[in-house]
Amino acid sequence: SALQRYREQMRTELDKVVEFWQKYSHDTQYGGFFTCIGKDGKIYDELKYVWLQGRQVWMYCRLYRTMERFNKPEILEAAKSGGAFLRRFARIPNSGSPWKCAFCLTRDGKALKVQRTIFSECFYVMAMDELARVTGDKDMQAEAAQMMDQLVHWVRVDPSGLGKPQLSGDTPVCSMAVPMMLLCLVQQLTEARSGEEVDKYREVGGWCVKQILQHLQRGGTAILESVSSEGKELPGCAGRLQNPGHALEAGWFLLQYGLENGDQELQRTAVDKFMEIPFLTGWDKEHGGLLYFLDVDGYCPTQLEWSMKLWWPHCEALIAYLMAYSHTKEPALLERFSQVYDYTFSHFSDAENGEWFGYLTQQGKVTLDFKGGPFKGFFHVPRCLYMCEKILDSILNKQES
Amino acid sequence: SALQRYREQMRTELDKVVEFWQKYSHDTQYGGFFTCIGKDGKIYDELKYVWLQGRQVWMYCRLYRTMERFNKPEILEAAKSGGAFLRRFARIPNSGSPWKCAFCLTRDGKALKVQRTIFSECFYVMAMDELARVTGDKDMQAEAAQMMDQLVHWVRVDPSGLGKPQLSGDTPVCSMAVPMMLLCLVQQLTEARSGEEVDKYREVGGWCVKQILQHLQRGGTAILESVSSEGKELPGCAGRLQNPGHALEAGWFLLQYGLENGDQELQRTAVDKFMEIPFLTGWDKEHGGLLYFLDVDGYCPTQLEWSMKLWWPHCEALIAYLMAYSHTKEPALLERFSQVYDYTFSHFSDAENGEWFGYLTQQGKVTLDFKGGPFKGFFHVPRCLYMCEKILDSILNKQES
Repeated sequence: SALQRYREQMRTELDKVVEFWQKYSHDTQYGGFFTCIGKDGKIYDELKYVWLQGRQVWMYCRLYRTMERFNKPEILEAAKSGGAFLRRFARIPNSGSPWKCAFCLTRDGKALKVQRTIFSECFYVMAMDELARVTGDKDMQAEAAQMMDQLVHWVRVDPSGLGKPQLSGDTPVCSMAVPMMLLCLVQQLTEARSGEEVDKYREVGGWCVKQILQHLQRGGTAILESVSSEGKELPGCAGRLQNPGHALEAGWFLLQYGLENGDQELQRTAVDKFMEIPFLTGWDKEHGGLLYFLDVDGYCPTQLEWSMKLWWPHCEALIAYLMAYSHTKEPALLERFSQVYDYTFSHFSDAENGEWFGYLTQQGKVTLDFKGGPFKGFFHVPRCLYMCEKILDSILNKQES
Repeated sequence: SALQRYREQMRTELDKVVEFWQKYSHDTQYGGFFTCIGKDGKIYDELKYVWLQGRQVWMYCRLYRTMERFNKPEILEAAKSGGAFLRRFARIPNSGSPWKCAFCLTRDGKALKVQRTIFSECFYVMAMDELARVTGDKDMQAEAAQMMDQLVHWVRVDPSGLGKPQLSGDTPVCSMAVPMMLLCLVQQLTEARSGEEVDKYREVGGWCVKQILQHLQRGGTAILESVSSEGKELPGCAGRLQNPGHALEAGWFLLQYGLENGDQELQRTAVDKFMEIPFLTGWDKEHGGLLYFLDVDGYCPTQLEWSMKLWWPHCEALIAYLMAYSHTKEPALLERFSQVYDYTFSHFSDAENGEWFGYLTQQGKVTLDFKGGPFKGFFHVPRCLYMCEKILDSILNKQES
């Protein structure tokens, strides 16, 4: 059947992608991972991006823990090496907070850049918690929990520790990325656990969902990346910005949360709004593929890359539509999945050297030909293949039984 | 003759461009200029970018002061309005330095973003000094000079006032933009002046030239955007980055400096290296136009926009080749000018609504269709047209006499 073919393809592709990163990304001298990797595997820059270090640790551990064929010592060793590198070097000494992490490190772990946002720290939490799950290291788990407390404090109480100067015109803005990221951490930290800590996180999760839903604007017809702290539309370009791939990612986060909590209304909103709107506005009817940014009023976005086709929105779309189909069994959602699948596998996947290209022109031509870069690591592609394989397993197993 | 046709075109186009910005960009309510202007003149965002405010003040004053047909009260009034807005709002209160400027302001002048670089402050100096030249305001001139002293201190003595955290892996890097910008300010502050202040600036100018020449690397075969503080090549992507349009701009800065100081060797280096190399490496032989970024070793740059064609490198190329031709009379340089001219006027200039598009795909299709944006204001296009008209005047006047 078509579903079996999809599963076969996801599985084969995941094996190839894991092989690619195992072969090329490990820094056996200093630990951690190279992420700037050319189309044929050549390292073209040795800098180590903390987001990508954390994500690779997480992904290796998740594969090791939940997929039998990846439960292999070399996967665990690589994850541990990345985890040790992060623990030793990611946090910046004397930065005002013991928890502030760098954005980018030299090969040997010296801090090179720091962002005034929470994302390096978020991927640190993901890495540490998942690594603690496979190693049983309680200290590491406690460290993830402490970092999480700091993150929640920065987001909900006082952001001043992030180092952004207070400017009179810089009114608070809610970026959808922040509650999405925290919700992802809540899922990570609560999975198969219980107790007081978990109750605390659940409250955070509920808050995140409410925050994300504020980005559904204009009477439920648009998803906007940034809104005011009162949940209203912001003026100007920033207020009108749409990121279809990000909305789709939020869609499957919300659907998953709605399923876990038996919230049917949330499930419907996830599918009918967060998965439907980005497709209607973001799918390029002429050339195929999802556009990167759009202005809700049809102005031209000011982001130079707005019309490019990036790999990760397509990864998120595949997860979203397949997850939605598996729960609703609506054929239209499988149709969507199939449409995104055809574009994705024919444009991004590199049959010659393995792994995926990340950046295409609007017309679908590869325009940056590396497999890893400052923002593309071992994360969106394997997470997509992994989740799609799991979802297809569950659909097909149910059909068989 | 061809040169007369070029001059006619430059003049007509400059008139149209000035008219466009006069018509659409003036904020008569709060002062200063809107810069986010759609293809047909519609304001799509009200934020005020300090770089672009300063540049527009400078350009208006320069036109007013040195071109008779722009010596009109409405041009001066607009420049004064922009200058007053900048003086009132650009500097950030309580930022640790009385000279630190914001990068972006709200329409009514509240600081929204600040960069940890020197460029907002540089365009502030350009604006204030040129405005002081047309108004005779000595306070304003003194303010420009004081800000210049601060800039030189940040660049040559101690950058800590810029607010960048000290990180162990963040070794000092020389970016070609910094000495280029300071050299531009030296030219601005010394023009037709003499005295002690001017001697001080001349020393700075000499230092800038030496710094810029350090970016000529690999035995004089490559111009690299960033080098180490010892003038050596840096490792990784950052060290290999080339920006052809920026090298061409440095080319005409150096040529101008070499001509003013009777330095023939510098003149030759400017033409043979800073104007020749970027053309050989940066001109797109398949589609025409100058590529935005390149890696000197042929890796793919990590900047998503590397293969796009931007308006400003073409503006700088037109100035560079025409200036070089006017002094050397080498036909090959006029040929280069002509080649860039044909591409530029057929791709960027908008015959329908006036002004120029700024951003094309590699294939030459307009992909961001606004006339003004966060980085495109009333500067590169009119400066190019203004300088080309002046150079053509001087060539043609000499021919006639």
